[in-house]
Amino acid sequence: MANIQVNKTAHPFDKPRLEALLNRRFFYAPAYEIYGGVAGLYDYGPPGSSLQANIISEWRKHFIIEDHMLELDTTIMTPAPVFETSGHVARFADWMVKDSKTGDVLRADHLVKNVIEARLAGDQEARGLATQPQADDADKKKKKKADKAKKAPVRLSDEEVAEYERILATLDNFSGPELGELCRKYKITNPDTDNEVTEPQEFNLMFASSIGPTGQHPGYLRPETAQSHFLNFSRLLEFNNGRVPFASAQIGRSFRNEISPRAGLLRVREFTMAEIEHYVDPDDKRHEKFHEVRDVALRLLDRNVQSSGRTDVTSMTIGEAVAKGIVANETLGYFLARIYQFLVKIGINPERLRFRQHMSNEMAHYATDCWDAEIHNSTGWTECVGCADRAAYDLTVHSKKTGHPLVVRQALKEPIVTEKEVAEFNKKTFGKTFGKDSAAIQNIVNNLDEPALLKLKGELAQGAATITTSEGKEFKLTPDLLTIERKTFKQSIREYTPNVIEPSFGLGRILYTLLEHSFWSREQDVERGVLSLPAVVAPTKVLIVPLSAKEEFAPLVREVSSKLRKAGVFSRVDDSNTSIGKRYARNDELGTPFGVTLDFASVQNRTMTLRERDTTGQLIGPIDEVIAVVTDLVQGNIDWAEACKKLPAYDGVQAVE
Amino acid sequence: MANIQVNKTAHPFDKPRLEALLNRRFFYAPAYEIYGGVAGLYDYGPPGSSLQANIISEWRKHFIIEDHMLELDTTIMTPAPVFETSGHVARFADWMVKDSKTGDVLRADHLVKNVIEARLAGDQEARGLATQPQADDADKKKKKKADKAKKAPVRLSDEEVAEYERILATLDNFSGPELGELCRKYKITNPDTDNEVTEPQEFNLMFASSIGPTGQHPGYLRPETAQSHFLNFSRLLEFNNGRVPFASAQIGRSFRNEISPRAGLLRVREFTMAEIEHYVDPDDKRHEKFHEVRDVALRLLDRNVQSSGRTDVTSMTIGEAVAKGIVANETLGYFLARIYQFLVKIGINPERLRFRQHMSNEMAHYATDCWDAEIHNSTGWTECVGCADRAAYDLTVHSKKTGHPLVVRQALKEPIVTEKEVAEFNKKTFGKTFGKDSAAIQNIVNNLDEPALLKLKGELAQGAATITTSEGKEFKLTPDLLTIERKTFKQSIREYTPNVIEPSFGLGRILYTLLEHSFWSREQDVERGVLSLPAVVAPTKVLIVPLSAKEEFAPLVREVSSKLRKAGVFSRVDDSNTSIGKRYARNDELGTPFGVTLDFASVQNRTMTLRERDTTGQLIGPIDEVIAVVTDLVQGNIDWAEACKKLPAYDGVQAVE
Repeated sequence: MANIQVNKTAHPFDKPRLEALLNRRFFYAPAYEIYGGVAGLYDYGPPGSSLQANIISEWRKHFIIEDHMLELDTTIMTPAPVFETSGHVARFADWMVKDSKTGDVLRADHLVKNVIEARLAGDQEARGLATQPQADDADKKKKKKADKAKKAPVRLSDEEVAEYERILATLDNFSGPELGELCRKYKITNPDTDNEVTEPQEFNLMFASSIGPTGQHPGYLRPETAQSHFLNFSRLLEFNNGRVPFASAQIGRSFRNEISPRAGLLRVREFTMAEIEHYVDPDDKRHEKFHEVRDVALRLLDRNVQSSGRTDVTSMTIGEAVAKGIVANETLGYFLARIYQFLVKIGINPERLRFRQHMSNEMAHYATDCWDAEIHNSTGWTECVGCADRAAYDLTVHSKKTGHPLVVRQALKEPIVTEKEVAEFNKKTFGKTFGKDSAAIQNIVNNLDEPALLKLKGELAQGAATITTSEGKEFKLTPDLLTIERKTFKQSIREYTPNVIEPSFGLGRILYTLLEHSFWSREQDVERGVLSLPAVVAPTKVLIVPLSAKEEFAPLVREVSSKLRKAGVFSRVDDSNTSIGKRYARNDELGTPFGVTLDFASVQNRTMTLRERDTTGQLIGPIDEVIAVVTDLVQGNIDWAEACKKLPAYDGVQAVE
Repeated sequence: MANIQVNKTAHPFDKPRLEALLNRRFFYAPAYEIYGGVAGLYDYGPPGSSLQANIISEWRKHFIIEDHMLELDTTIMTPAPVFETSGHVARFADWMVKDSKTGDVLRADHLVKNVIEARLAGDQEARGLATQPQADDADKKKKKKADKAKKAPVRLSDEEVAEYERILATLDNFSGPELGELCRKYKITNPDTDNEVTEPQEFNLMFASSIGPTGQHPGYLRPETAQSHFLNFSRLLEFNNGRVPFASAQIGRSFRNEISPRAGLLRVREFTMAEIEHYVDPDDKRHEKFHEVRDVALRLLDRNVQSSGRTDVTSMTIGEAVAKGIVANETLGYFLARIYQFLVKIGINPERLRFRQHMSNEMAHYATDCWDAEIHNSTGWTECVGCADRAAYDLTVHSKKTGHPLVVRQALKEPIVTEKEVAEFNKKTFGKTFGKDSAAIQNIVNNLDEPALLKLKGELAQGAATITTSEGKEFKLTPDLLTIERKTFKQSIREYTPNVIEPSFGLGRILYTLLEHSFWSREQDVERGVLSLPAVVAPTKVLIVPLSAKEEFAPLVREVSSKLRKAGVFSRVDDSNTSIGKRYARNDELGTPFGVTLDFASVQNRTMTLRERDTTGQLIGPIDEVIAVVTDLVQGNIDWAEACKKLPAYDGVQAVE
């Protein structure tokens, strides 16, 4: 389809129209809607469920199968001690402020961002530079809030503007107390009430519950699937025959009790995520398949650029980024490139995809480095995939807490042979001589470094030596009490805690931004929305459209359905009582890439037309040939331009538009 | 494979050996094991995850795709009002008792069952009839408990035995207070301590939590996915163009805070379920595809047989069962047969599958009829699929609570025309005459039945009539105050609340019983476990075994892998440093149905051997032909006997056993 021109930008992106489509066709809807809904909870209807299932299926192929990852399916309910150890109970929190009069709860960083953005917008307006706020700049609620906050447009000084812009560029780097300071310094109040807000307090984002009938076993719903990977590390390593590197992967539900979720699927309290934990030797973070992705070019926004208050991206190949040290190592680089390839394959616009490195205060408590794949959409840039280097943090803390070693034992090809001086104490005489001081003295000797031990050895050879404790007590050592000798050590096993590189995907965010990137309206018909979803993720691949629901078409409909199913192509029949054009239009809204029409000619000549969604171009051919071509199209073996060479164009009398 | 004899019962089922295999190969393991584990929570490792994913994939094809069901993916976290309305807050509970001294919590019905079973076993022993308890009669803990409870074998009277057997057969029908009575009457104590137990108390099985930062919005983790289907009913109906019958379906996690889960995957606190809600006209529960399953024979255990204390099944076709009224209607019957077909397709032994109807006290509060698909396993008969007729219960209560109509509006082909007498009041004179009594009088007239209205009409024609209120006050009515006339009513829309038939699958239970049904050991080698999983659900379909990991085999391994992947067949390579026989044996434990070996002959002649897991038979042929045959085998197009006709047998020198 690449070389056939369709003008998808004839109409500007119209967010309310997209949202109306998604709601009307039940891609998703607020959960518990008839009970008034709950912020941050959404249900996926039939097309949304299928789209998500197809994204997951492609994810599984692209990551798990391609790289032989070990899949897990672990529990959501987690006993509290696990998250106490991992640090989530203490630190997995956001900063919230309360309206000092109404008690309404707001997330501190979002408050600062919204108010400052509103002030900058007001300034633009006061300077006469303001464009009418576009529908795609903000969802309605946000717009209303901004309108309220800005009141009469106020012109700011150039210094204020610069200061505000600097704050926005580095907002993720502010701590809670610093956010409180900002509120005081810039007189930031609750825009809904104009009341002052309280000092920021931490609010833990985990949902709490209790396991069992006694109420004595607190539990949390996991906020990420990762911890269960780590706890199963020994089993996974064994399953992989003890070999490292390898990765585990899991697709599952996680929960975060967001303070005030408001951005549709972009910020929710319950979400499906897909996580990979790739275990690697900390001394060797090369990746054996890095050469396959070396030339993939990414748009990068690194930590240093952001710290200087800028947000301009640099485009370079991942090979260059790793060589220059911008991306720390090959394994991290491999995953950034693979994430890029996956997102583009399912339909994300590469021009609206960047990789942003976390600033130091912004990182989760367990991470030493982190790059987010951010996808641009009507609310700005949104983190959709995080790719963190968790180092050995998690495996180390769980191992320490439980006493269960979470380590790799690697047989060394060449044993490492070392020699060193070792003190041996004469148990009988030593204790008798020094009594309760014995242990302290032995400890001092054992902690001497090589030169000090050699010195001591020399003194003992002379007859005696003196050592002094930290409290200044002196003891005399003689050769009958201890000897110091050179010994040979052979180490044939190396034991280490692997580092973990973690690509973590928020599937709802990817799904929503994909819908935005896919949505457009035909030049001649703004009313008709089209979702240009790639066939690989489209809920239905082929629509079968019989001219009518009459009995004479039924055998052909069954035949085509069955042949498509056999070819592994998911189709649906639309035999509703309306024109073929209307039925196609309705399925353009669902993103169905291809349609086939069965009419009287089909009954007489066994021919069928094939229609492509984006171009609305049509071809015609014998039924079996059309099935073969559409199967190749759906499987990505050919594109529409190639299909046009295989089958003649159809410009028959039957109007389909 | 049907017609090639393999003796799978040479060794009796050995549960500890199966459990060791499942644990060692990480099919699943206790979650949070290194933290000491949590009862009722399990993690699935790589083969368990794949097996589950394949069962789900087959379920989706068998039910959702085959019957065009509308798939949903809804949230687990649910605001409390939903479950208050549905009745779960009040009634979704089990009865628990506490040990009167230690406070240990036990589930009341399980306590009664375990103690009575132990007494019956003791009686058998005392009568000299006891067989040694088989490994497959109980898991270890249960056995230990039974041993403890029975102490010295005590002989019971024949009356006691009969009484105990009657209790066991009807145990599910006992209420909490009745269970308490049983404990007192039969002196049932905590077998671990011999202490008396408290009166049974209800314990709600839902996990509670709180939504949002204020703590003011209680929520529960769903114990079933069903409620979200019902709450989305209007959207689903619209998606289906207003047509009924149709079904929604969902696969997802649910939670039940079991009192004391002890039976491995058979009773857990968090589980993946697959639920179908089929909406049907209460006046027409026929099913258009019933003829397709009419002749499917099922083993049925109906309510009446159980109530008489028996457990003998009757085998009959579902057509006959519906005709005789044993199964209430075609739709329920259709699903029972489809459930049967699904379970047998994925490998459940049909001889160990029965359908048991719930007794009246046993049913969930929302159900009017319910049949469980029960699968026999080492713990007895376990409910794995429930098939309930929830009637209009849920849609009605939610509709009433929210004021949102959850109904079907059906255009009638023929409008229903009715005539009836209707009173019309003269607004001016009526109010003036009767003042504050007007409403009460109008109410009385409007509630008169047809004959009474006719009588009143006659009296008015005579000049006046008298009516009397319930308090005995009399009022005189005259023709200037009201007239009664015959009017014609035309109803062109029928509005009704559909009934819901709900097949609900516990995937973990199905997975575990499937593993039991699939497990056996070779006659000549009891050590070697085999899982005879059908190819459709086996985690890996084909094992690729190069003679060694040497570089010369690498190109062929890549070629065969790639060709199988292209054919849609999931394969794995085992190039570990051990004999081919050992590698096959290791993969028999994982249930891999086919293996291909690449050796020097493959390099020279491009031939490959093909091995079948159950028979260990081997064939040989050109690589591409073997790939074609194994693809057909995996897709179920041919069986092993047919494969043996397509390729010559291999009895080469290379030992593979």
